[in-house]
Amino acid sequence: MRTAFYISDGTAITAEVFGHATLSMFPVEFEHKTLPFIESVDKALAIKATIDKVADSSGEPPLVFFTFVNPELSDIILSSKGVCYDFLSYASEIVKRELKVKPVPKVHRTHSIHEKTYDFRISAVNYALANDDGANIKDYDEADIILVGVSRSGKTPASLYLALQYGIKAANYPITEDDLEKGNFPKFLLEHKHKLFGLTIDPDRLASIRQERMANSKYASIRQCRIEVREVEMLFKRHRTPFLNSTKFSVEEISAKIIAEAGLSRNKY
Amino acid sequence: MRTAFYISDGTAITAEVFGHATLSMFPVEFEHKTLPFIESVDKALAIKATIDKVADSSGEPPLVFFTFVNPELSDIILSSKGVCYDFLSYASEIVKRELKVKPVPKVHRTHSIHEKTYDFRISAVNYALANDDGANIKDYDEADIILVGVSRSGKTPASLYLALQYGIKAANYPITEDDLEKGNFPKFLLEHKHKLFGLTIDPDRLASIRQERMANSKYASIRQCRIEVREVEMLFKRHRTPFLNSTKFSVEEISAKIIAEAGLSRNKY
Repeated sequence: MRTAFYISDGTAITAEVFGHATLSMFPVEFEHKTLPFIESVDKALAIKATIDKVADSSGEPPLVFFTFVNPELSDIILSSKGVCYDFLSYASEIVKRELKVKPVPKVHRTHSIHEKTYDFRISAVNYALANDDGANIKDYDEADIILVGVSRSGKTPASLYLALQYGIKAANYPITEDDLEKGNFPKFLLEHKHKLFGLTIDPDRLASIRQERMANSKYASIRQCRIEVREVEMLFKRHRTPFLNSTKFSVEEISAKIIAEAGLSRNKY
Repeated sequence: MRTAFYISDGTAITAEVFGHATLSMFPVEFEHKTLPFIESVDKALAIKATIDKVADSSGEPPLVFFTFVNPELSDIILSSKGVCYDFLSYASEIVKRELKVKPVPKVHRTHSIHEKTYDFRISAVNYALANDDGANIKDYDEADIILVGVSRSGKTPASLYLALQYGIKAANYPITEDDLEKGNFPKFLLEHKHKLFGLTIDPDRLASIRQERMANSKYASIRQCRIEVREVEMLFKRHRTPFLNSTKFSVEEISAKIIAEAGLSRNKY
């Protein structure tokens, strides 16, 4: 199998995201190796040796996506037997030409604690945890959004992702059978109606997720799942609560859709 | 202020990560706009109009980082007044030349539920939540890693990040004053000694974090924080538990360092 390296003087998250997106266009399997915090000549030389060894033993040069602030380290990687791509350099040339400003490279410029919105993100994570699964219904004034849906419709991972990545204070509340019988959202949700966003899910998928959690229960039965999903969707429609069916979407996709549809402000950069 | 657009037919996460990394090298402030799920000609034409409007009203062309599978959509964006960069195309040319394989572009190829490790990530999130803050000490057999440290040393965000991004089952346990008085890890941690990873923090920073949570308490006093940090570090050293000081690092950096030092396998791709 061909090897792909993602190398940087920082977390290498950018190298990995970029390299993975590029390689995912090809119908080829790769072994992925991420090497973060390569900040010294010694470390870079060790990586070069690793790349060369992979090239020699497999007979195929690895693909290497890298970025360094220090050009001395870049030169070491470029001298390896890998097919090396300094992926930010071309784009930064274009930006430099347009802005007529020189880049001022700094180590750890992204994904660091110095990003100005970092503290927002950490306090949003604390908020999302304290307000997960209806654990706390008194702090919804502070919420940017309140995800609602039946048990196991994907609310928790979406809340955490919104908080951790975007600094969005996302609470989530499970709509119970009791709520559905009463035919309405509880009062403390209605007070924040404009912050509600619904998640729904195909009954078959819901039943299989619940089955793993509580096998052969009424809770996990397909009949129960069908009733709950139908009733919660009716509730969303009646209140004009925006909602999306999470069945076929990843947590990244669900989060991006919620941000776009609800018009949330992101605290990312 | 100059505007930067990140546009894609998917989540636009890759466009955003790449564009942000490029722009972060320049000492210039940007207004960032992310536009995901641009999958139709109509939507692309609307975006082109938005870009042109920004260019006309500000007199400065926005910087546009974009990627589409459908070349018709790319052409629409390229015909706008922005400085447009189809950031994956150059890298994919290099890869194509090396692999001698044509790309097979598919929409939603990254950050989708079809990534083969997606289910790992969701079950790791459930694990991290159930095993947060010492809530459950019976399932450490299943843990990939157990983060330990005094209260508020950064364990929870790191556990969630490891789970959500990398599918790593990360538990975390707060070392209490009671544990420190006894001068040892509790027995149920010693049974999993090889899985322990310590987080420590500068006492000043710890005191200020605890102060926000419980103002003027003994818990938040600088003296108490100094004692706890000194004692927990002694404990880490005595057991040769790897540890890192989280004070100056983001959750991304802490996670990357833990993965590298503990040699964890990532379930990302």
